Amino acid sequence: MGRWEPNAPGRLAVAALDLYIERGFEQTTVAEIAARAGVTERTFFRHFADKREVLFDGSSGLVEFLADETAAASPDASPIEAVQHALEEAAERFFEQRADFARKRQRVLAANPPLAERELMKLTTFAAAMAGALRERGATATVAEMAAEAGMVALRVAFGRWADGDDENLVPLLREAFAELRTVFDS
Amino acid sequence: MGRWEPNAPGRLAVAALDLYIERGFEQTTVAEIAARAGVTERTFFRHFADKREVLFDGSSGLVEFLADETAAASPDASPIEAVQHALEEAAERFFEQRADFARKRQRVLAANPPLAERELMKLTTFAAAMAGALRERGATATVAEMAAEAGMVALRVAFGRWADGDDENLVPLLREAFAELRTVFDS
Repeated sequence: MGRWEPNAPGRLAVAALDLYIERGFEQTTVAEIAARAGVTERTFFRHFADKREVLFDGSSGLVEFLADETAAASPDASPIEAVQHALEEAAERFFEQRADFARKRQRVLAANPPLAERELMKLTTFAAAMAGALRERGATATVAEMAAEAGMVALRVAFGRWADGDDENLVPLLREAFAELRTVFDS
Repeated sequence: MGRWEPNAPGRLAVAALDLYIERGFEQTTVAEIAARAGVTERTFFRHFADKREVLFDGSSGLVEFLADETAAASPDASPIEAVQHALEEAAERFFEQRADFARKRQRVLAANPPLAERELMKLTTFAAAMAGALRERGATATVAEMAAEAGMVALRVAFGRWADGDDENLVPLLREAFAELRTVFDS
């Protein structure tokens, strides 16, 4: 194997996810992941700090993206509409591009409570980033926090359906989830 | 010190919280907590598995209580109204009874990300319990999940204000938070 490995991070991620599903996250070693991807352990550690990071890589880019897209929503958009806009953009530009990865990842998280905990914390940082952007759009701190966190409720529902089903697109599921969330508050 | 120590768990909890705030959670030992409470380490371990459990003790009782109160809400109540009812009952019967403890606990969690993670997971079990009760009241799985999780958003806002302020009662803050959450979905 040469020193230059095209798309090593991508192949490592696929290998890792497959092994986490086949053998369990705890039982899988970095050596096994590297071997499955056809690279050295050293290559693994050039791209990921540890085997957990394979699952959480790339979320810092998403935090910024969500803040930017919340800020970029139409000036007429209400806070919850701005959040919906940002999540739809993220669905299209991040998740739908990596549907297979996202679905496998979801299975691994569901089977490993400590990873699910870490995921919850990650969603909290997404909500905080959108809340910050909403405050800059003029929302009060409370409305900003509530709209961002309510948005995460819709995202979790939509994402769960997408991960469990075989819809190609996440965006329509996200729209549907936001519509359902609105009905919860109709009275 | 005698073999019978009145309210040892209560005294241990107060001692632990005070030490976690004074010295930090990580830096505090069980020996120090026991000494501050005037009991032996053995007494500590009769009541708590470890120093983390001091902070999370009692939450299983609350899970059942929330499910029961969700079920007991007026038959006319919508899912989100049933959730609000259950949380108001919990505020009155659990949190307001232990205001000083709840406030100190909140400071400790805010200063310790791993404890805050655990708290998030705990809130998820509360939401799941209420969602289960809502399904039994006839709500769809999605509406049940959304109403319960939206309720947790209101609870977190209300609880944060209560913990940071000096209001005696949590219930009015909870009502206010639910009203604000409704305005997020007015359009």
